[in-house]
Amino acid sequence: MSDLHEIRDAARAFRAERDWEKFQDPKSVMLALVGEVGELAELLQWLPAEKARSLLVEEPLRGRVADELSDVLIYLVTLADKLDIDLAPTALAKIQRSAEKHPVAKVHGVAPTRTGGRLHGAKGTAQAQATPGGCP
Amino acid sequence: MSDLHEIRDAARAFRAERDWEKFQDPKSVMLALVGEVGELAELLQWLPAEKARSLLVEEPLRGRVADELSDVLIYLVTLADKLDIDLAPTALAKIQRSAEKHPVAKVHGVAPTRTGGRLHGAKGTAQAQATPGGCP
Amino acid sequence: MSDLHEIRDAARAFRAERDWEKFQDPKSVMLALVGEVGELAELLQWLPAEKARSLLVEEPLRGRVADELSDVLIYLVTLADKLDIDLAPTALAKIQRSAEKHPVAKVHGVAPTRTGGRLHGAKGTAQAQATPGGCP
Amino acid sequence: MSDLHEIRDAARAFRAERDWEKFQDPKSVMLALVGEVGELAELLQWLPAEKARSLLVEEPLRGRVADELSDVLIYLVTLADKLDIDLAPTALAKIQRSAEKHPVAKVHGVAPTRTGGRLHGAKGTAQAQATPGGCP
Repeated sequence: MSDLHEIRDAARAFRAERDWEKFQDPKSVMLALVGEVGELAELLQWLPAEKARSLLVEEPLRGRVADELSDVLIYLVTLADKLDIDLAPTALAKIQRSAEKHPVAKVHGVAPTRTGGRLHGAKGTAQAQATPGGCP
Repeated sequence: MSDLHEIRDAARAFRAERDWEKFQDPKSVMLALVGEVGELAELLQWLPAEKARSLLVEEPLRGRVADELSDVLIYLVTLADKLDIDLAPTALAKIQRSAEKHPVAKVHGVAPTRTGGRLHGAKGTAQAQATPGGCP
Repeated sequence: MSDLHEIRDAARAFRAERDWEKFQDPKSVMLALVGEVGELAELLQWLPAEKARSLLVEEPLRGRVADELSDVLIYLVTLADKLDIDLAPTALAKIQRSAEKHPVAKVHGVAPTRTGGRLHGAKGTAQAQATPGGCP
Repeated sequence: MSDLHEIRDAARAFRAERDWEKFQDPKSVMLALVGEVGELAELLQWLPAEKARSLLVEEPLRGRVADELSDVLIYLVTLADKLDIDLAPTALAKIQRSAEKHPVAKVHGVAPTRTGGRLHGAKGTAQAQATPGGCP
């Protein structure tokens, strides 16, 4: 069975057993997701960028991050469920579209930007804003 | 195969082919996730709460929401991947712990709150803040 | 004295006295702001939309919301300070530009949308996505 | 006149002239704020941490960041306005309370953490999570 479906079903059962479905309209679930994203951000905020990964894979941070990642995922799956969106095929198709939008030959080693410039890896162009368009 | 692993692997291949792994330290991926959460929020923000679901399941909103949900999921899976966290078992275990923390007999039809009060479904207690503790 | 400058100066003194300036690079302050936005969202998430305002203006929610609004503002002012951006004239100019972009004659009672449709207040157009472009 | 009041009044007039007050219940304004925070995050996300400040103070990034900071501030002021909260004295009082909570003698050069450990500046304690409690 798809593991995203398994999480969806477990969350659905959790809500149904508690009669909590009624509180979870889309905007409320969205705000709950924002709350969990905030808790995740708090775990990362003051970590020095270059040491962040090595600090995050050790306890006690590791367990807390796993917890918050889970909370974000659960609300994301819940929101998708309420809108009858099947997340797995949708996300895989999105990666496929991003791959077509950013051909390897054009963007290898260079983060594309929304302002048409380049931020990384290109001489003399570091001033531009770097926002890959929805790429993973 | 687990579909979360499938998304993880597709995102990993996408980054590797473009030599983009180097830009994606944890704090940068976290900010990218926040950016996508913001785009999702923009799709919901002005919808009247009581009509939100019915508007969101129809095009053109439906496709756009599916897109943004995918982007959030892809960055979430990417962040977990970088920290060697396996999201599916972690999220399922989290739902299990939430279920134990909020026994059906105690919370049926009532949203638990962090201030010890009750927001919904309980007479005379509507003043309290309602934040289920990490429940799905 | 400008009150935004007063908050900026108090936050600056707070950091200087504690030698905390060094931890607060822009991306870290941004994540701290996201953390506080998350805490604010948690206070609103399960409130029924139509009762949210009346619940939020009463204690104990009122004091907690004031606290979180303050935290968001403090980090926002801090981020602007680090980038030498003077928030008050910038924000007032932004409202002025939004006013020119959304002429009263065209948008009265109707939320403009990014998809060119209308969400509220217009017959037969409720299907569109409503995202006023940065309007206050 | 207080500049936060000036922004509040300009935003109020903007909404009143367009008859948009009716769309802006607290949860909707909160989601709009999240949308603007997301746009701000997108401007910072792929910047190398150690060059972020110097890239952000130059155009074209500088103007875009000023714009997004303004949008976040405008929605923050709007939300406070709707809840009759006067942001300036509230934020100044919050900094004062943070200062009492984090005495200079105890935290000089060390980021306090929620797990009781220390992240920066203390020998052998770098494993802890660093979340200053609401400090500016």
